[in-house]
Amino acid sequence: MEPLLYLDHAATSWPKPPEVAAAMLEALEQSGANAGRGSHSLAIGTGRVLVRARSMLAELFGVSNAQDIAFTHNTTMGLNLAIKGTLQAGDHVISTMTEHNSVRRPLEYLRRTIGIQVDYLCVNEEGQVDLVELERLFRPNTRMVICNHSSNLLGSILPVGEIGEIARAHKAVFLVDAAQSAGTLEIDVQKMNIDMLAFPGHKGLLGPQGTGGLYISPELNPEPLMHGGTGSQSESSEQPTVRPDRYEAGTQNAVGIAGLLAGVRKIKALGTHHIHKQEWLLTQQLMEGLSSIPGLRLLGPGIGAPRSGIVSFTIDGEESAAIAHRLDREYNIAVRAGMHCTPLAHKAAATLESGAVRASVGISSTEHDIKRMLDAMEELYGRSRSSR
Amino acid sequence: MEPLLYLDHAATSWPKPPEVAAAMLEALEQSGANAGRGSHSLAIGTGRVLVRARSMLAELFGVSNAQDIAFTHNTTMGLNLAIKGTLQAGDHVISTMTEHNSVRRPLEYLRRTIGIQVDYLCVNEEGQVDLVELERLFRPNTRMVICNHSSNLLGSILPVGEIGEIARAHKAVFLVDAAQSAGTLEIDVQKMNIDMLAFPGHKGLLGPQGTGGLYISPELNPEPLMHGGTGSQSESSEQPTVRPDRYEAGTQNAVGIAGLLAGVRKIKALGTHHIHKQEWLLTQQLMEGLSSIPGLRLLGPGIGAPRSGIVSFTIDGEESAAIAHRLDREYNIAVRAGMHCTPLAHKAAATLESGAVRASVGISSTEHDIKRMLDAMEELYGRSRSSR
Repeated sequence: MEPLLYLDHAATSWPKPPEVAAAMLEALEQSGANAGRGSHSLAIGTGRVLVRARSMLAELFGVSNAQDIAFTHNTTMGLNLAIKGTLQAGDHVISTMTEHNSVRRPLEYLRRTIGIQVDYLCVNEEGQVDLVELERLFRPNTRMVICNHSSNLLGSILPVGEIGEIARAHKAVFLVDAAQSAGTLEIDVQKMNIDMLAFPGHKGLLGPQGTGGLYISPELNPEPLMHGGTGSQSESSEQPTVRPDRYEAGTQNAVGIAGLLAGVRKIKALGTHHIHKQEWLLTQQLMEGLSSIPGLRLLGPGIGAPRSGIVSFTIDGEESAAIAHRLDREYNIAVRAGMHCTPLAHKAAATLESGAVRASVGISSTEHDIKRMLDAMEELYGRSRSSR
Repeated sequence: MEPLLYLDHAATSWPKPPEVAAAMLEALEQSGANAGRGSHSLAIGTGRVLVRARSMLAELFGVSNAQDIAFTHNTTMGLNLAIKGTLQAGDHVISTMTEHNSVRRPLEYLRRTIGIQVDYLCVNEEGQVDLVELERLFRPNTRMVICNHSSNLLGSILPVGEIGEIARAHKAVFLVDAAQSAGTLEIDVQKMNIDMLAFPGHKGLLGPQGTGGLYISPELNPEPLMHGGTGSQSESSEQPTVRPDRYEAGTQNAVGIAGLLAGVRKIKALGTHHIHKQEWLLTQQLMEGLSSIPGLRLLGPGIGAPRSGIVSFTIDGEESAAIAHRLDREYNIAVRAGMHCTPLAHKAAATLESGAVRASVGISSTEHDIKRMLDAMEELYGRSRSSR
């Protein structure tokens, strides 16, 4: 069988660059001990890795003080910290229908327990929001606006800069979920008026699972999600106020963060703009090919429009899981099928019943990969007579 | 200079066994994708690592259903989940003076915000609790008893089996912090009446940082600390009830858990009992040698008494940080000094002002290491005329 063709980069990037593994091995071998907790050389070495990774991420996202970035277990942890640490009973939140369950479930939890109000801004079939409609949703008690940068189902890119401006005008805290954009789309928290930015380490930033982070504007002071030892102000029974300690209780994933640092270095060397352009060209090639398959419906933005590296589709009369299964077993092609933890986006795309197949490209994807995927799809599902 | 002598195993075990690095590399190279989120072979491979690690941990801790163990970022996350997910306004908690800030800070946070009552059971100079005193602290609204298995400062081993029996008799939830015992002391959640057990992956279990877990009795249903995507019941806006998904929102640290699995395999092959016995003998050798140094005061249980691999001490008129600094710079010996995130234990040991030096042994420590440490200490701080 042909080697694995991996088109599930939206779940996690794979394979990781060799530099990532090398950095993790080095960290495992040389950076024992706990960052910030000991004065011996190993502990200091561990601390240095965290400092470097934090600085490099700050540079990537236009953050002026690296201490405003806290490392997290994953994007979900960053989003939970931002949401639960900010919202109080009676607050109103505006979010969108394209949000992942990592935003929707914390919001619905708070609605049920402490009592908040939530509006999910509609998206059209292409996964886009209407900014006039957004303006209309504000209320005097609107405390937060939360949106993803790119939909994990539809691939649409939300105008976070414009949304940020609107949120700022209404004095609402603007939280962005960069799960599908960190490392592949330009992000500048200052230019985009982003107050909090949750990002994964293991997707576009090419690091390992178990890494991620949350940028928190110095003007905000959300309650930490976890209270515990920080190696600072040990004698106090309260969580320290100093950052990043305040938001990093307990032992950090120093080995994973060493890998993340190597991944971010690679991203910066290549340039986000270049990465996105290359990925976009591959999505266009994929979409053009797929559009010739009978009964196949592409989701999200049309051909030629901006999108991230995600191309989702359905085929009339076919289960999405069955399509993915055949690609896996018969062609050794990895895509994801079914529900994608974003039920409202499925609703917007009318795929709540059928689910969808999601193919997603990454930094290592090539034109040859796309051709192989298209050949497999044509062998399995044919080609319209009209095309070619 | 001589090679590094690492005596900071209570912070993190080091070096990790070579099997751990090998397993992590393999996971990084072969187990891309997200466990439980895709049907392709890579995703299934990732899922298998998590299943195996969970089963092996269940076996180690006497847990009958492995699904009752949730992976966490670190012990602190497990403790925060257990404490914040269980306690409600008006509840009373009994804990001890030897707790780490990872227990004390969440408790004090809840006391300040929702209003709970907390009693910290006194410990004597040897770090031991009085079970009669424990009995006296129960109130009709006592909801939880929380204690560590071994103090991270004093090295004392708390009688968790007996405490568990008392908690059970009072229908209180019994939470154990196994930060300093998982992998080195016998733990059986059933025999010890433990309802929740928080443990680190990177200390006695020999895995990498960024790993850990929480066992939750099937009779309990704490609210998750994080709400988000789980790859299950995606269409629901509520966190799934199925375990472990309920407590594992977002992408898990699959690479780290692969390393943890390798570490636990090593622990099981050697046997916890054997590991503890070897570590105890080394602590005795270290304590006997240190006791001949003028003005040196050993903390915690006396020579001959049970203890974990931790030996903390002070020297009259010397700053603990200065002692650790000299050991590091002049002898390449890594110990930890200062406050150890456990202010009440320092209070019990009357070291709140001075801090303490903590030397801690691990699976790779040898008699030669102890001799080297003792030689360094004698060169630096002399030896009483009375000895030898």
